[in-house]
Amino acid sequence: MPSYTAPIKDTQFILHNVLKISEKAIPGYDELDADFTNAVLEEAGKISSEVLHPLNTVGDTEGCRLENGVVYTPTGFKAAFEQVKEGGWTGLDMPEQYGGQNMPYIMGTAVGEMFSAANQAFTMYQGLTHGAASAILAHGSDAQKDTYLPKMVSCEWTGTMNLTEPHCGTDLGLMRTKAEPQDDGSYKITGQKIFISSGDHDMADNIIHLVLAKIPGGPDGIKGVSLFIVPKFIVKEDGSLGDRNGVSVGKIEEKMGIHGNSTCVMNYDSATGYLLGTEHKGMRAMFTMMNEARLGVGMQGLAQAEAAYQNALEYAKDRLQGRDVTGVKNPDGPADPLIVHPDIRRNLMDQKSFAEGARAFILWGAKMIDQAHRAEDKDADGLISLLTPVIKGFLTDQGYDMTVQAQQIYGGHGYIEEWGMSQYTRDARIAMIYEGANGVQALDLVGRKLAQDGGKHVMAFFEMVKNFCKENGDISESYSKEFIEPLKAASKDLQAAGMYFMQNGMTNPNNALSGSYDFMHMFGHVCLGLMWAEMAKAAQAELDAGSSDAAFYETKIATGRYYMARQLPATALHLSRIQTGGDTVMALAADQF
Amino acid sequence: MPSYTAPIKDTQFILHNVLKISEKAIPGYDELDADFTNAVLEEAGKISSEVLHPLNTVGDTEGCRLENGVVYTPTGFKAAFEQVKEGGWTGLDMPEQYGGQNMPYIMGTAVGEMFSAANQAFTMYQGLTHGAASAILAHGSDAQKDTYLPKMVSCEWTGTMNLTEPHCGTDLGLMRTKAEPQDDGSYKITGQKIFISSGDHDMADNIIHLVLAKIPGGPDGIKGVSLFIVPKFIVKEDGSLGDRNGVSVGKIEEKMGIHGNSTCVMNYDSATGYLLGTEHKGMRAMFTMMNEARLGVGMQGLAQAEAAYQNALEYAKDRLQGRDVTGVKNPDGPADPLIVHPDIRRNLMDQKSFAEGARAFILWGAKMIDQAHRAEDKDADGLISLLTPVIKGFLTDQGYDMTVQAQQIYGGHGYIEEWGMSQYTRDARIAMIYEGANGVQALDLVGRKLAQDGGKHVMAFFEMVKNFCKENGDISESYSKEFIEPLKAASKDLQAAGMYFMQNGMTNPNNALSGSYDFMHMFGHVCLGLMWAEMAKAAQAELDAGSSDAAFYETKIATGRYYMARQLPATALHLSRIQTGGDTVMALAADQF
Repeated sequence: MPSYTAPIKDTQFILHNVLKISEKAIPGYDELDADFTNAVLEEAGKISSEVLHPLNTVGDTEGCRLENGVVYTPTGFKAAFEQVKEGGWTGLDMPEQYGGQNMPYIMGTAVGEMFSAANQAFTMYQGLTHGAASAILAHGSDAQKDTYLPKMVSCEWTGTMNLTEPHCGTDLGLMRTKAEPQDDGSYKITGQKIFISSGDHDMADNIIHLVLAKIPGGPDGIKGVSLFIVPKFIVKEDGSLGDRNGVSVGKIEEKMGIHGNSTCVMNYDSATGYLLGTEHKGMRAMFTMMNEARLGVGMQGLAQAEAAYQNALEYAKDRLQGRDVTGVKNPDGPADPLIVHPDIRRNLMDQKSFAEGARAFILWGAKMIDQAHRAEDKDADGLISLLTPVIKGFLTDQGYDMTVQAQQIYGGHGYIEEWGMSQYTRDARIAMIYEGANGVQALDLVGRKLAQDGGKHVMAFFEMVKNFCKENGDISESYSKEFIEPLKAASKDLQAAGMYFMQNGMTNPNNALSGSYDFMHMFGHVCLGLMWAEMAKAAQAELDAGSSDAAFYETKIATGRYYMARQLPATALHLSRIQTGGDTVMALAADQF
Repeated sequence: MPSYTAPIKDTQFILHNVLKISEKAIPGYDELDADFTNAVLEEAGKISSEVLHPLNTVGDTEGCRLENGVVYTPTGFKAAFEQVKEGGWTGLDMPEQYGGQNMPYIMGTAVGEMFSAANQAFTMYQGLTHGAASAILAHGSDAQKDTYLPKMVSCEWTGTMNLTEPHCGTDLGLMRTKAEPQDDGSYKITGQKIFISSGDHDMADNIIHLVLAKIPGGPDGIKGVSLFIVPKFIVKEDGSLGDRNGVSVGKIEEKMGIHGNSTCVMNYDSATGYLLGTEHKGMRAMFTMMNEARLGVGMQGLAQAEAAYQNALEYAKDRLQGRDVTGVKNPDGPADPLIVHPDIRRNLMDQKSFAEGARAFILWGAKMIDQAHRAEDKDADGLISLLTPVIKGFLTDQGYDMTVQAQQIYGGHGYIEEWGMSQYTRDARIAMIYEGANGVQALDLVGRKLAQDGGKHVMAFFEMVKNFCKENGDISESYSKEFIEPLKAASKDLQAAGMYFMQNGMTNPNNALSGSYDFMHMFGHVCLGLMWAEMAKAAQAELDAGSSDAAFYETKIATGRYYMARQLPATALHLSRIQTGGDTVMALAADQF
């Protein structure tokens, strides 16, 4: 059985030493001093380790089951969900007005990593609800907010997102679900939606489905899509639950992983729905959920990698196999622990340097969201919009790879289900797919976000990296050589790739789009490089100030050195691929394959 | 439901246009003209598609079950196994003397890819038997050969390899299973073995376990390990089956994949065993099996990638989603097929260029085995010994990644079990682990094989690449630019890495071993680069000769161009990592993690 310990010290280091959040002029941040955040994280860590994580294997093994139209979650999920609700965790960063705790998004993110790492399938019930509530908060009428938000913030009612249909995933313009206007202002929704996470279950009194559908007579394609609130049980005027609505579960999908989450086929048969936001502007409203969900999914990549890493590390320290080539390390034992072997180290350092870098990246992104929403900082809004596909695509690809590497440390024990390492890999796999497959993230990044607002945000990013390098170039010779120079080189590669797209993408967009995936990955590496440069700087400052916890900060710097030396140079390979253009990629006609 | 079509044309191209096998002076090769090999491959392809592949999902879904000590294979396996036996496929490359067809190993390999691609879990029953029979063939007494081989060649009896114990996998010196000598020359074997593929099942009358164990009083560690034949049923003098031996199944493991193969915990309780080969020289005998098994596992990496690719390609052609940015391709449909999108193309070309390159690499390797075994070519023997860890490690890592990429093309449909793409990923995952985890392959390559025979074989490899480049540098300007130059550059990177190891590994072996994994991958890329240069040359020769099948050869060259431009340059990244040495990798003390 794997174990999980919340990375509180690392998170605190990022929040306070790197991002220095309580010094930032963002409303709500002044309350986030180190003691306060530590208390929140300690409590969240406890729930993660003691309540959610023990149910992770249970959820994987039992899965959800559909009986007579009712979905049952795995043993223990319901009681655990009650505990999470009672602790107020579901409304951590939601407005007080609706029963939330009004903490900044960055705190929701820090806690969210822990919950996800402990039990991804479980945490999705809450995560989808948060997304749906955010959409209602942003686009709902006051009456809709009053009706749904208090119950959704507390997770007495949970939420879902209904986009995909059997014949359309990414291309939502092909959607067939219909919404026919009724005399009372409501709509009758009819159609089938698939892959609906948390689509139905036994842990909430009501489920609020947000459903994309087309109002007949509206514009063709994606421009004619509207968003509707479709409750499982109709909510009466007094707030009590009325009749069962015309929505039912067709089946639960058998999946590679996240078995504890009910992924449903949902059938809407003249179900009563209420327009959320404006007619035909459903995609805009849906993107409120989707952007948040994409950050949340990027976080899942980190979370699964972190959880898998923790276990791989323990195994590498415990398992005795072979001897250190440079000299026996465990002379009293029959063999040395795996961790003495250089290739095991390489593997562990890959994981460690990824997880810590990714955590900084995610929290930095969450801070930008707070800047945008709480301080109306348009630059932060633009930058996080640019970085959202990078966070989603890069962190889930890399996070998945890290779960595979963690599994590898166990040898054959990683392949059997008994040790739990297969589950991390199987659960992490979905994050590369849902909320927009990573190829779509790359397309969003290169095809849309790069040029957004005249390319202003990507320019600002480069400017920021440049300034960081300039301002910190003379901290020390070693810092300059080990951190600043590699960061400069990687950032230069990224700029060269952007330049290549500008010069060659106009004449043939395939020259840009063929390199979009590589670009997303190199962008991710530059972000993690920047994070490591920031973290090493912050750690060095603590050492220079004579910290009594020198080992922690020295480890941080050594881990950063590894990332800069071994991982960041991947940008050069990505650039070289990008610069070969679209010709070799598009050379074959479809029937030549 | 996925489908599978054997890649006969591609295999024929490699056998005859690239390797020109029937022209080679290797005993048995003169019979392998194009018509003959085509007939064999057609027949094998038919069995693969029609008999084995339809059972692939069945095996995954049902798995094996243990009831009252008896293991039952999934529905249909037994009947299919009978068909395979009757067709003589189990003894394709085994000596006629024991009922085999005496074809060269290269034919067994070409057929093996098809069987593995169609149903890996099923084909393992036969594969393990082949390995065990090879060990008996190489190390058994005449009496042992006469007793076991005829039945094993026909797979009336199957075989297993018993190495791993709960506390030891790679480090077999820690083994506890004991073999106590008896007065009649036999041994009593006692101990527990785990992860025994095909350990027990209902498809054969007897199972011949090859078991590593220690004879008390022998040398410590790995030097005191002997190999034993332990039949499930004792074979009487007249060849008929006698008593049940003291070997039983403890349990069947629950695994991530290859559910159709029974992975057993085997308990030996004073089981009667017969020494195979020499006392205390068990590892040498085991390596006969293991080297063959490693090539077979490398082939599984290719096989799963090929099967997954075929399905991803079909899906990409069928699924309508979005529009080609350079102009609508399917104006009569609601959207264009996925295959128009550049990032889908990148993904498919990665897969295609890997699978075809890997196939050439595997068959080239198989040819070396034939040269070594049939023509006693010591150079070929040395070269394949060097390349075995590359074939195993590189092809299974890359093969796995390709199944993940294939799954990705399906979006959410790739994650649910219904479409079968998850199974390719889950099945392919084991190949990175068994027969020596890939980290161990890298260690074998850098720590042992590079310096073997004074480094003679790696020098010969470089010489061969150099000569190829010299001899073919003036085929045409474009060939030189697109194939020869990239191959030269990659080979130069590989040599520089080897040089780095020589210069820095002496003072500190960690400088070499920290780069072993990267070295294994760059070596694999250079081999695939060489294969693509060979294939492009052979294809161009056909075009120059006015082939009526120009489209096939043009596609081959275009696919090669993709590999050379987009994949081969990975060597530079691997080199840059290697040249950072062991310092960043080994910087942390174990307790600093």
